[in-house]
Amino acid sequence: MELLKERIRRDGRIKDGNIIKVDSFLNHQIDIDLLNEIGKEYKRLFNKENITKVITIEASGIAVACLTARYFNVPVVFAKKSESKNIDGDVYRTTVTSYTRGKDYTVILEKRYLTSNDRVLIIDDILATGKAQLGLLDICKQAGAAVAGIGVVIEKGFQGGGDRLRKTGYNVQSLAIIDSMENKTLQFRE
Amino acid sequence: MELLKERIRRDGRIKDGNIIKVDSFLNHQIDIDLLNEIGKEYKRLFNKENITKVITIEASGIAVACLTARYFNVPVVFAKKSESKNIDGDVYRTTVTSYTRGKDYTVILEKRYLTSNDRVLIIDDILATGKAQLGLLDICKQAGAAVAGIGVVIEKGFQGGGDRLRKTGYNVQSLAIIDSMENKTLQFRE
Repeated sequence: MELLKERIRRDGRIKDGNIIKVDSFLNHQIDIDLLNEIGKEYKRLFNKENITKVITIEASGIAVACLTARYFNVPVVFAKKSESKNIDGDVYRTTVTSYTRGKDYTVILEKRYLTSNDRVLIIDDILATGKAQLGLLDICKQAGAAVAGIGVVIEKGFQGGGDRLRKTGYNVQSLAIIDSMENKTLQFRE
Repeated sequence: MELLKERIRRDGRIKDGNIIKVDSFLNHQIDIDLLNEIGKEYKRLFNKENITKVITIEASGIAVACLTARYFNVPVVFAKKSESKNIDGDVYRTTVTSYTRGKDYTVILEKRYLTSNDRVLIIDDILATGKAQLGLLDICKQAGAAVAGIGVVIEKGFQGGGDRLRKTGYNVQSLAIIDSMENKTLQFRE
């Protein structure tokens, strides 16, 4: 998605440790117009998939998921990172390792909101090692829900998570794939 | 907002401890059509306020904030609940006590995304004791940003947070105010 790549080139800030900060438009401050265009692009890419639900993990996936679900006319469900008094039903539970936070955490999703009748589009802002996506796939498996596809805004191709998911047969659509950030220069995959 | 009250009456589940679960449409599973209507309503209520930014706290405020910001054509910035490798700039920092989680936590917002040039609409899904809103107000004060208003989807009126904010002069617009849940019966404020 050329609009997105231009934006990453212009506003992305490359940091030590293979980290790219895109928090001026994607995951801290959010450019709603850009996310609308991203939502439209996912609609184009997954239009024939009869999606019934968009799922993501809190927090930074929620904005992309909501502005994508608009175009499919389906609800969003986001996996929650911690327990609260407000969780009382039966839940699916899985463990995710965060690359940026450097630790494991449990996410939960109430069983009533994902069932074997669902055809799911998994959405997230970043795909690096793919741990968040694997967590959501595990929840879909527990629910018996079909996974129609995985939509990612920015894939860090050099970390391999996206290609591993593709090899296992998933339709992973990343709108920008960064194959290298060597010498702080961005190389996008064609 | 009648559409919202009807939805709360139909799908809200009242739990012990003055808790109402609205997670089938507002803060776990998200009904995008309803949130679009909510966004439109905030646009109507704050139309003349020259809003430059919508701010909220992760995670459950993000969906409402995004689907509201669409109508104002402004960005969203959400305060983050924890530090990660991806935070490196100067940040505003404040402490919030969570009613549902029963503990204090720190939220941060990068200084570059909120300045004294901003006129802010604070958005959240629930207002109970008002602690989350006070945290965001503190961040706005640190930034020197003007607060044009506070938009809340559901206010638990009997917990007093909304009225305390109104008494200090803030324009708090809650789309449904629950004044009582005694005997598991909802009483909305007129």
